[in-house]
Amino acid sequence: MFAALQNDSFLRACLRQPTDHTPIWLMRQAGRYLPEYRATREQAGSFMGLATSPDFATEVTLQPLERFPLDAAILFSDILTVPDAMGLGLSFQQGEGPKFAKVVRDEAAVAALQVPDLDKLRYVFDAVTSIRRALNGRVPLIGFSGSPWTLACYMVEGGGSDDYRQVKSLMYARPDLMHRILDLNARAVAAYLNAQIEAGAQAVMVFDSWGGVLADGAFQQFSLAYSRQVLAAVKTEHDGQRIPRILFTKGGGLWLDEIADAGADVVGLDWTMNLGTARARVGDRVALQGNLDPNVLFAPPEAVRAQARALLDSFGAPTPGSGHIFNLGHGISQFTPPEHVTALVDEVHRYSRQQRAAG
Amino acid sequence: MFAALQNDSFLRACLRQPTDHTPIWLMRQAGRYLPEYRATREQAGSFMGLATSPDFATEVTLQPLERFPLDAAILFSDILTVPDAMGLGLSFQQGEGPKFAKVVRDEAAVAALQVPDLDKLRYVFDAVTSIRRALNGRVPLIGFSGSPWTLACYMVEGGGSDDYRQVKSLMYARPDLMHRILDLNARAVAAYLNAQIEAGAQAVMVFDSWGGVLADGAFQQFSLAYSRQVLAAVKTEHDGQRIPRILFTKGGGLWLDEIADAGADVVGLDWTMNLGTARARVGDRVALQGNLDPNVLFAPPEAVRAQARALLDSFGAPTPGSGHIFNLGHGISQFTPPEHVTALVDEVHRYSRQQRAAG
Repeated sequence: MFAALQNDSFLRACLRQPTDHTPIWLMRQAGRYLPEYRATREQAGSFMGLATSPDFATEVTLQPLERFPLDAAILFSDILTVPDAMGLGLSFQQGEGPKFAKVVRDEAAVAALQVPDLDKLRYVFDAVTSIRRALNGRVPLIGFSGSPWTLACYMVEGGGSDDYRQVKSLMYARPDLMHRILDLNARAVAAYLNAQIEAGAQAVMVFDSWGGVLADGAFQQFSLAYSRQVLAAVKTEHDGQRIPRILFTKGGGLWLDEIADAGADVVGLDWTMNLGTARARVGDRVALQGNLDPNVLFAPPEAVRAQARALLDSFGAPTPGSGHIFNLGHGISQFTPPEHVTALVDEVHRYSRQQRAAG
Repeated sequence: MFAALQNDSFLRACLRQPTDHTPIWLMRQAGRYLPEYRATREQAGSFMGLATSPDFATEVTLQPLERFPLDAAILFSDILTVPDAMGLGLSFQQGEGPKFAKVVRDEAAVAALQVPDLDKLRYVFDAVTSIRRALNGRVPLIGFSGSPWTLACYMVEGGGSDDYRQVKSLMYARPDLMHRILDLNARAVAAYLNAQIEAGAQAVMVFDSWGGVLADGAFQQFSLAYSRQVLAAVKTEHDGQRIPRILFTKGGGLWLDEIADAGADVVGLDWTMNLGTARARVGDRVALQGNLDPNVLFAPPEAVRAQARALLDSFGAPTPGSGHIFNLGHGISQFTPPEHVTALVDEVHRYSRQQRAAG
């Protein structure tokens, strides 16, 4: 059904198998920093117009691959498609971030929630299949979802937040309701990711973008437990191929040991964590993905290259059983000069080959 | 000159001396969650109107002590008084946070910066003396400043930020300029804190509110090194009394070991760090301050009490050489019901006495 994969370095690194270079992709690589993305978005009329059209989603997913020799593609979509399909009414205001028409803050709203009919997310699975075909085996395609906790943050807050007051109030005052939301989210996310895999995703990533806002103790109970539930229910194989699963927790460095035992093949890290320390701590339990500060990309290309080398040095030369996927520690900024990305990708490929030759 | 201190539990805990209960105070305890604060602010006309008037500053500093048996008072002021005195023009827009009229983003702006004349900060030192007198020995008075890095964030960004793009761009592109700003800030902050001590502050705290946004490596170089420079230059004694120094780094848990060696007597922690783990890691190097999630205070009083006990249990019974000051992991929210604070302070006092009796 799909063409054979030509560059499997990303999948191999996820599974801690040897590669001839360190694979690299960038969170939010199909995005506003690319003029061609802005042009397509203009045509589509809105962010959701892009995301709900398999043709547009395919077009923008492939745009960064035309510019840069990235080692993976990631489905163009949003982490909030699942609560949207639950009927909460997702929209994006210009320059404002996501908003939900309905919020989930009381017993009645929680009781009304249901695992969504996957048919409502058909546009995502169609996009996955369309992108996979268009990739034609060039690089693997990553599917994704928000984590149960991260989805719950938006469902309760109704949008972004700078203090997470509503969701934490519910969590501390009515932990029983919070657990019901999270269990439901976990079942929905698992079904959603499995459907992406069936549609053609070759790896899946769970974005726990807001796990790091939780207190120690609450993180384990309200975030990690439900990411673990998702990972336990997501296929590890499809069509005879292993499907690597990545768990990224922004601000999760303090809990790395526990995150590494949550059932993922790969743990994504933000830039606050030292990559060498992280590698020593996880041993051969998981591969690591990350973790350059996206703001490094505002420095001149020579400085970008130096920071990339420092990060590769911090991980150290690959050895059997280790795996590193180079990435940013967060989504790329819309203000990033694309030619600085060129320098980054080139340096990661060049220097990581040199590391292997020296080792 | 000042009345003898009646409740020295805070100072003793800072210096890791035995206390009969765990002292508690709350970051931003004089603030908008108190109706009496809102009334005084109305009178003063603005936040800076409050902060620049020693009478108003004294009034609001003492307000939370009238309601709650807190174990310390903290100067009512802002972390940004120093760059304001440098001539950058601080203002607070309604509901917007701080703004500077001038930003520091290029060589010329950096060259124009100077350590401010401390006379421009006379209103702060006058407030310190006035508050100390009004306290009349009830509890000790804490002075404070933003850290060199945190001040630099605001000076370069011109206000708050959600990505720190400007300050990190400068840091990665022109580290030489960044170091010049930071060195100047460190000298200014040290002089400022020493003047607060001379005016009557009995402990001082450095707020590295934005240290946690830095990448590993950059944190040590651009934030911690300059907090260390400040701490090395701040008096450890005044009038025959030890002056404890507290360093609080929001999001600094991953760097706890290094922060504990920066020269502070006390390390402040946010809620992401497990307090028992932190205690084991720092041993008897420093006391710890923290670290309840301020959002716990939105739960009903019984749940607040349970979370307070869990946190005290996590630290464990005090032993010789250990010290814990109970606090939030960040400033108290303006939406907090004051009666929940009553429950928190009561439970910390009650349960920590019980812990000592059981031990």
